[in-house]
Amino acid sequence: MEKHKKILNKQLLASVSGLDAPPVLKEAMAYSLEAGGKRIRPLLLFAVIDSFGKNPEIGLSTASALEMIHTYSLIHDDLPSMDNDDLRRGKPTNHKVFGEAMAILAGDGLLTYSIQLIAEDKNLQADQKVELLQLLSQCAGPEGMVGGQVADMEGENKELGLDDLEYIHTHKTGKLLTFSVLAGAIIGGADRSQMDWFKHFSHHLGLSFQISDDILDVTGDEELMGKPVGSDTGRHKSTYPSVLTLKGAQEQLARHIEEAKTALRQTNLNTGILNQITDLVADRTH
Amino acid sequence: MEKHKKILNKQLLASVSGLDAPPVLKEAMAYSLEAGGKRIRPLLLFAVIDSFGKNPEIGLSTASALEMIHTYSLIHDDLPSMDNDDLRRGKPTNHKVFGEAMAILAGDGLLTYSIQLIAEDKNLQADQKVELLQLLSQCAGPEGMVGGQVADMEGENKELGLDDLEYIHTHKTGKLLTFSVLAGAIIGGADRSQMDWFKHFSHHLGLSFQISDDILDVTGDEELMGKPVGSDTGRHKSTYPSVLTLKGAQEQLARHIEEAKTALRQTNLNTGILNQITDLVADRTH
Repeated sequence: MEKHKKILNKQLLASVSGLDAPPVLKEAMAYSLEAGGKRIRPLLLFAVIDSFGKNPEIGLSTASALEMIHTYSLIHDDLPSMDNDDLRRGKPTNHKVFGEAMAILAGDGLLTYSIQLIAEDKNLQADQKVELLQLLSQCAGPEGMVGGQVADMEGENKELGLDDLEYIHTHKTGKLLTFSVLAGAIIGGADRSQMDWFKHFSHHLGLSFQISDDILDVTGDEELMGKPVGSDTGRHKSTYPSVLTLKGAQEQLARHIEEAKTALRQTNLNTGILNQITDLVADRTH
Repeated sequence: MEKHKKILNKQLLASVSGLDAPPVLKEAMAYSLEAGGKRIRPLLLFAVIDSFGKNPEIGLSTASALEMIHTYSLIHDDLPSMDNDDLRRGKPTNHKVFGEAMAILAGDGLLTYSIQLIAEDKNLQADQKVELLQLLSQCAGPEGMVGGQVADMEGENKELGLDDLEYIHTHKTGKLLTFSVLAGAIIGGADRSQMDWFKHFSHHLGLSFQISDDILDVTGDEELMGKPVGSDTGRHKSTYPSVLTLKGAQEQLARHIEEAKTALRQTNLNTGILNQITDLVADRTH
């Protein structure tokens, strides 16, 4: 998977630098793509394709698209009128370097270009592309990530119950993780039943991811995370530990990890790497 | 065409209100879609489909997508960090009503949902959808509209030559008009040669549209336009009249209108309505 990650990082920058577009826009787009991160979404996609015994690199364009959409959402989330964050992954946020207007446009550019990458992909059939783009736009748009971001904003400074919290997280972060997994299944050639189990898997993995994020905001190491600990509490955001206590959140995390692994087994595929990724989410330190 | 415009307006609001998304997000998206406008892009699309003797309504989803992308670009352009406009089509701009964060997200939502509309369209074949989405993302993204917006920003308070001005306009507004026309040709079933003539047509129509916009900023009627006259000059923006004089701009406009009409004739299609639209651009009052 390290090899695929390296190829992806190279591909991400190559595709942006190859664009026929104003240099400053390409710089702003590349800046946030280069800021790194764990590339968890592309890795999930690759791992799912691998579970079908296929070469993960047939998913390279979709993986790039995924990382671009994730990156655009971070750039817009960090804006002064949104979360107003100065640092992201230990580096100044996009608008701190390029200004607000360019950061908005870099985000718009990454979102739009991600669609182009999938539409132009030479490895996929037209039917697969349409299925991927339909799912991606649903997972990233008003019914997915954008909707979750709105619900998150609306929920600030309010006491949220577990249902509201789950709505926010299954949408704000969960849907794009779901797309990562299901895109891999589409590209890998899943049958109906495998598709359903991958849906289960991604649902529980997504919630695990968010719960562990919230737990890290309480127990994490600032240096490893590249951002201040306790920032959610400082913003009076409802989190799993604040709603369920830290112990309750840890129990929920264990439950969702278990459900995710059960779903993997049911696919009858070679899901060794996906199991490892699931373990990493359970035990993450950053 | 009035009938199709009415159906489009209904469809636009119906598709947003049918979304499974936070109500305030749907309100913000619908607000700017309802603000009206001439719907020039959807009408172009319909007119091109009509020139093939087909029912324009097979392009209804693509027309909605077009108007959503145009609307998202206006919402983001109006933001305080961009053009900082308080009024649009005589109504308060999106961020004035819903706040900056929601306006950014409403724009993101409209852009993403526009992709979903085309991907889910039941009237089109998978091949057509892929061709439309590839062209749309190129015309709307870093190599198109977003790139033009960046160049426009970079060009403020600078003396621009005609080449720079044309780059800005062929990208900022021209590419999406080009998409409107070529999407109609894809849906209508154009052959290679017709496609090429429609490219010519849209290029010259797009420039005509922008030149007449710049001329109206000098000579227009505030009430008809719903925005202040002379705002480009006030911002020290380069315009066709400022680069070519008013008379020179009017001559360029006449030349591009003529080229557009010549291209239409070469398609050997029934382009009566497209001719009328071209005349309207030449003689617009708002």
